[in-house]
Amino acid sequence: MSKTNPGNFFEDFTIGQVIRHATPRTVTEGDRALYTALYPSRFSIPSSAEFAANVGLKPAPVEDLIAFHIAFGKTVPDISLNAVANLGYAECRFHQPVVPGDTLSTSSEVIGLKQNSNGKSGVVYVRSTAVNQHGETALEWCRWVMVHKRDAGSPAPTEVIPELAKTVAAGDLIIPDTLNFTGYDFTAAGEPHRFGDYEIGEKIDHVDGVTLTDPEHMLATRLWQNTAKVHFNTEARPDGNRLIYGGHIISMARALSFNGLANAQLISAINAGAHVAPAFAGDTVYAWSEVLDKAETSAPGVGAIRLRLVARKGRDESMTLRGEDGKYADGILLDLDVWALIPV
Amino acid sequence: MSKTNPGNFFEDFTIGQVIRHATPRTVTEGDRALYTALYPSRFSIPSSAEFAANVGLKPAPVEDLIAFHIAFGKTVPDISLNAVANLGYAECRFHQPVVPGDTLSTSSEVIGLKQNSNGKSGVVYVRSTAVNQHGETALEWCRWVMVHKRDAGSPAPTEVIPELAKTVAAGDLIIPDTLNFTGYDFTAAGEPHRFGDYEIGEKIDHVDGVTLTDPEHMLATRLWQNTAKVHFNTEARPDGNRLIYGGHIISMARALSFNGLANAQLISAINAGAHVAPAFAGDTVYAWSEVLDKAETSAPGVGAIRLRLVARKGRDESMTLRGEDGKYADGILLDLDVWALIPV
Amino acid sequence: MSKTNPGNFFEDFTIGQVIRHATPRTVTEGDRALYTALYPSRFSIPSSAEFAANVGLKPAPVEDLIAFHIAFGKTVPDISLNAVANLGYAECRFHQPVVPGDTLSTSSEVIGLKQNSNGKSGVVYVRSTAVNQHGETALEWCRWVMVHKRDAGSPAPTEVIPELAKTVAAGDLIIPDTLNFTGYDFTAAGEPHRFGDYEIGEKIDHVDGVTLTDPEHMLATRLWQNTAKVHFNTEARPDGNRLIYGGHIISMARALSFNGLANAQLISAINAGAHVAPAFAGDTVYAWSEVLDKAETSAPGVGAIRLRLVARKGRDESMTLRGEDGKYADGILLDLDVWALIPV
Repeated sequence: MSKTNPGNFFEDFTIGQVIRHATPRTVTEGDRALYTALYPSRFSIPSSAEFAANVGLKPAPVEDLIAFHIAFGKTVPDISLNAVANLGYAECRFHQPVVPGDTLSTSSEVIGLKQNSNGKSGVVYVRSTAVNQHGETALEWCRWVMVHKRDAGSPAPTEVIPELAKTVAAGDLIIPDTLNFTGYDFTAAGEPHRFGDYEIGEKIDHVDGVTLTDPEHMLATRLWQNTAKVHFNTEARPDGNRLIYGGHIISMARALSFNGLANAQLISAINAGAHVAPAFAGDTVYAWSEVLDKAETSAPGVGAIRLRLVARKGRDESMTLRGEDGKYADGILLDLDVWALIPV
Repeated sequence: MSKTNPGNFFEDFTIGQVIRHATPRTVTEGDRALYTALYPSRFSIPSSAEFAANVGLKPAPVEDLIAFHIAFGKTVPDISLNAVANLGYAECRFHQPVVPGDTLSTSSEVIGLKQNSNGKSGVVYVRSTAVNQHGETALEWCRWVMVHKRDAGSPAPTEVIPELAKTVAAGDLIIPDTLNFTGYDFTAAGEPHRFGDYEIGEKIDHVDGVTLTDPEHMLATRLWQNTAKVHFNTEARPDGNRLIYGGHIISMARALSFNGLANAQLISAINAGAHVAPAFAGDTVYAWSEVLDKAETSAPGVGAIRLRLVARKGRDESMTLRGEDGKYADGILLDLDVWALIPV
Repeated sequence: MSKTNPGNFFEDFTIGQVIRHATPRTVTEGDRALYTALYPSRFSIPSSAEFAANVGLKPAPVEDLIAFHIAFGKTVPDISLNAVANLGYAECRFHQPVVPGDTLSTSSEVIGLKQNSNGKSGVVYVRSTAVNQHGETALEWCRWVMVHKRDAGSPAPTEVIPELAKTVAAGDLIIPDTLNFTGYDFTAAGEPHRFGDYEIGEKIDHVDGVTLTDPEHMLATRLWQNTAKVHFNTEARPDGNRLIYGGHIISMARALSFNGLANAQLISAINAGAHVAPAFAGDTVYAWSEVLDKAETSAPGVGAIRLRLVARKGRDESMTLRGEDGKYADGILLDLDVWALIPV
């Protein structure tokens, strides 16, 4: 019998099933350095141990998305190795900031199943949780993916579609215990704009563009131990291109958003996300943001700002999300809805 | 007089000569992170400090091959800068696991010399040893290389061909003192297969492929401070290609072998190895393994499994090593014979 | 109003103005590892914690140029985002060696202004200083850049051209307090050549070449958080090439100079520097050095050697700097004048 992992097919999932994912992964200063080399990130908390200590975070956490990518990558061999498509995210909340030395272990619970009408595939909903070595939750999120059936003839499971929040309520955001923005150093952080300077509905063109390359996205995707074949193997797709991991685009857009949102420091939640189109080496990625909402928090000096973060191929100064037909505008790669923490 | 290193030629080596190689190199968490980014490695001991501690290894060692590549790279300027070919390996044993903070220093003893019949080159056999800052051996190995003579007219040395073991005897493997697999967590490690599940003669197709790129192999090769010109300079070969360091293929194959051999955790010995064909950017590397032998060890819960690890260009589900003519099958890049430690 | 950083134009600078640059940056072992992967560096002090401790440096400093690139990168958004050209360096001195854990903060004082005769741009002279978390200076340097005016009609400032030393006087070099080369291990360092072995006027061809790639220079430039668009975006130049950050060439040349100058261990000063021509992916970089001066220092066993470090595209064994017309020879990329510390 083959010893390699065939992944799970739609029939292998049952409601309530809990899958403990391999392999636990210890985060290090090496991850922080590589992240800086891979993405044009300059956010001052992960960049500077001194800045982080001054806002109550000591030792300095790594970029929030490092934890997200590592935890997400762990779920791939069990959840999405046979996926047709990654359909959506919801209710992603960051709990404890992850610092070098933390070991993340990830597990997923199956919370929904819906066979497609063609009988050949189905949608699997999971809630995944990454905990550190102390058993504390680092982050949790839901996602749903379309997965092939092994056998089209196998019976459909009872349909269960979970109710997922359209957006994480501001009151449900988890603020790190010790976070305190009252002595925030705006000059060191790079921009003067604070909570009160952003208006709901405001759009920000982040101006800069980065042209993607194959070696860089492969380095990133391997760093998160994400093993999906299409990212690495030119023989895996008819066109000979390597498909770029969607998370690479998320991190690129987030890093580009520094220019205009330098103080939107910590990602607190991902409310929703769509990978609108695939990205390939040679594409030049730009980003723009839209302020969707704002909320106060109980932490000293800390506000929450809800942002639509859009990545696109080629710059669009008009920052158009959808055409008159309601479809995403040409060139859009990513439409991500996040809550970030920002000094008031 | 030129101050640059011309390397040693065949005449420069004498039996019994000991060469202390520059430059000592301290291993860090940065090396671990880069290794993860360069190779699709998910072995749980180097990945997780918690997992490593649970099997008796604290702090967590880095990938065994990091130590091998660093130590090997050190020998290049003195041993193989003028080499025509790297002919073979034998008797490579890993002693103390290498952890971040360890500084490796490498030296080589010349143990064999054989001039070629053409009088223009000869074979040099060396036993190389890398020790840490405590003077403990981290690893040792023999290799033999064909080296140019400076002057075809210089006299041939007395021929000495060392007797090298075809394979390291199971009883000669060195098991880390504290290693204990009795509480091994197979779920966290990623696969259920243990010592008893593998049969001698069994072959495992590791399924996944990775398409190589120039920037990635150069990053890797520099990280090990290996200076052989052909890896970096498109002007060094008539075809304008950069030859990929053979060790890059070793690490790629080893990482790919996780899929089917996730519990073959620590490389304990390299019995033999042949770089069968050169690899270049654009090649897609696949791997398969064959179980050659199995042995018990004195460590609790620890078995040893001897594996042939084959890397090839393009997948071959038949896993054919040699054609009817006895020659390596087309596409084969690497034929490596190793002992690994695995839970019983 | 736009929230993105438009950068400063010539009119925005005033004599005596002090600009505190974002973002402070903590140096880690990850930076050391990435530097090793990006450049073929083998200098024994940054490579080996044991070697460094034996010459009085504990913990081991990272490569001097890491501090330079990080500090330089910080000045880009405020000083040279709208620069036409980086015209020169002077009076760069390295003070305290930078070790992992140090957080560098950078500021610049405007020390000179000269509007160009065309009225459309001007030259800005700044003295920049990077300090660590203890307030100690890590390094300082002057540079001058040609910057666009926002409005050609705005009045010219009073012209101030600072007097900058053509070279840092040997007596002004800052030697790390504890540095002691009396027990220097030349074998471990890789070459036997010491202070007395180099003659003023001597030239050294460093022999090796490295062919540049886009992913590698982008990884490097991002690591220093340098955001100049032309390095990352193929849409930023009419020819579709990414311009390689000049500092990438500096580090490549410095690393190549190991072969012949392995004991020119620490860069103590950069006296002057010119980026003679742009470099692009596909160029093969070689280096040669010329000994310009030598001086004793007060530190035990430590001499200072002044070197012209030249990087060029394609090898030139004649090591010609300028043609008969006094212009730089074809192929020259970089002409850098440095002081390095070397065992006597």
